Amino acid sequence: MEKKSQKHGNSVVKMRDVAALADVSIATVSRYLNGNLDRMSTETANRVADAIDKLNYVPNSAARQMVKKSSGLVAVIAGNIDDFFSTEMFKGINAMLESKGYVGVLFDSNSDLDREKRLMQIVSNQIFDGAILQPYNAVSVIQDTIKRPMPIVIADREIEQSPWPQIVTNNYEIARQATQYYKDKGFKRVIMITSSLTMAANRRDRYYGIQSVINNIDVLEVSEKSYNHKKVLQQLVTLINGSQEDTLIFALKERWLTEFIPRLFYKGLIDDKHVAVTGFSDTGTAQYIDPKTKLISQDPYLIGADSGEVMVNLLEGKKQEPEKIIVPAKFG
Amino acid sequence: MEKKSQKHGNSVVKMRDVAALADVSIATVSRYLNGNLDRMSTETANRVADAIDKLNYVPNSAARQMVKKSSGLVAVIAGNIDDFFSTEMFKGINAMLESKGYVGVLFDSNSDLDREKRLMQIVSNQIFDGAILQPYNAVSVIQDTIKRPMPIVIADREIEQSPWPQIVTNNYEIARQATQYYKDKGFKRVIMITSSLTMAANRRDRYYGIQSVINNIDVLEVSEKSYNHKKVLQQLVTLINGSQEDTLIFALKERWLTEFIPRLFYKGLIDDKHVAVTGFSDTGTAQYIDPKTKLISQDPYLIGADSGEVMVNLLEGKKQEPEKIIVPAKFG
Repeated sequence: MEKKSQKHGNSVVKMRDVAALADVSIATVSRYLNGNLDRMSTETANRVADAIDKLNYVPNSAARQMVKKSSGLVAVIAGNIDDFFSTEMFKGINAMLESKGYVGVLFDSNSDLDREKRLMQIVSNQIFDGAILQPYNAVSVIQDTIKRPMPIVIADREIEQSPWPQIVTNNYEIARQATQYYKDKGFKRVIMITSSLTMAANRRDRYYGIQSVINNIDVLEVSEKSYNHKKVLQQLVTLINGSQEDTLIFALKERWLTEFIPRLFYKGLIDDKHVAVTGFSDTGTAQYIDPKTKLISQDPYLIGADSGEVMVNLLEGKKQEPEKIIVPAKFG
Repeated sequence: MEKKSQKHGNSVVKMRDVAALADVSIATVSRYLNGNLDRMSTETANRVADAIDKLNYVPNSAARQMVKKSSGLVAVIAGNIDDFFSTEMFKGINAMLESKGYVGVLFDSNSDLDREKRLMQIVSNQIFDGAILQPYNAVSVIQDTIKRPMPIVIADREIEQSPWPQIVTNNYEIARQATQYYKDKGFKRVIMITSSLTMAANRRDRYYGIQSVINNIDVLEVSEKSYNHKKVLQQLVTLINGSQEDTLIFALKERWLTEFIPRLFYKGLIDDKHVAVTGFSDTGTAQYIDPKTKLISQDPYLIGADSGEVMVNLLEGKKQEPEKIIVPAKFG
């Protein structure tokens, strides 16, 4: 960063500076910025991207507004397509995009920060008209990676001071509401099953929501990539039996409900009086395990549809503040 | 068809005929055939596609072998991305593609024949290097829709006399094997839960496999798009109670196992002696419902990886017969 300011001070960096550093024509830089990349080698595109990065070049509106050829394709980079939430959100996105003649194509980050970054690079260097992200990476990484000016929408992740519109659910509030319901019934302790808390802000928001009501929480983190089912189940049983307090088992993700809760029912460990269970459910499948269990249901399809609608507005040049749209989840 | 032969007889249709009918230059037709579509309006591309169709034009190898710009993107059109099978297959495809510098992007047919056709049109008209399909449509429809010569691989669907390589599982054999296991234990009747049988050949293959061993089958078709959970459950209970014969419940899809079977267990209707359950399971989640239940497990990741490998070979110009690769499922 220091090197940048030394070299270029506060003087305005022009497109020709980028062209000179990348050793390409101004036309090539312009084509890069406008996404006309099909006749450009990946090496050239990367050189232009590097030059933009080194010079901290911000394209002016004239460069941005040059007529751009639309592919009609919108990239959607999902956190992990094995989650029903991601695929259902994509269906919602597509329903909205297609009503306006666009088509969404799905990329899979596979719960991997580096992979997500690589996919953002590809999207930036290919012919996509816009990108809808469900990101793990921080704002600064996204900004450094997607160099080409293109409409960006953030779905399902809450970002402080986001430069882009974001469509999220009320993770904190709904987790708080569910926990309060059980606290009122006398539950004093929580066993929380979750994927890595450091990976995703929405999981942390849920955790904080629970914590704001019941502070006595045992956190059981399960790796999405590899875990021993029997061992996790044993840990759960040990935790349940490890306290006399009435305990609420809170799964931050439907997958952990469907994989571990049926066996706890069979073992007679869940009686709804001393041990109850709740959690986030996307498909309703968890409901089939025990119809009396109260669950939190999100609406990934609607989150997707709203994200698609905001994207269409951006693509059609309608001004859009980097607003936050909240699609509330329901408990009960 | 008659009109075609009247107009053009058996004379060889040339690229210039296509250009003339489409009212574009020969260079434009060539660019279309080689997938250089980014500077071509959708309207022009459609006109060229229509002309190719009307004239029944078959590009000669010279046209095909003109240097083609690669985007590095391979389109994957999945049957329904809400199925874990599809997303896991996509992960397998990607693992193989990415080891060779390609990236897979996922399209969702959403169990809809028309939609799948529209997606194939888009893939044909955009910058994808190849397409991996898990198709509902027939060979002739695929051939009529994907006009641009590009490598095509068929995943998870068995097609008679396929012009493309296909990677499938042994649906018939494994369904037969599982049914035989229960027949040997004295089961004489099957209740089969399935999505629409007319939609997909692999479901029919499973049905025929069961039928080859036990002929007394009640088929319960459930629509993937909308169904009443309570009603289906009631139908199942009625079917179970409707016969004195020892009955095997056979779910052709994991989703029907996880959605309906837990409640049957709770109701005490499954005892493994007079009423047993089996079915196709992709995630292993179904196993958590009852560890004693024997299931058929497919390997969607491996089916994907094999499909990706065949695609890479095609992209690298290695000759590949339209062979059939079988990735066997396991029972037990």
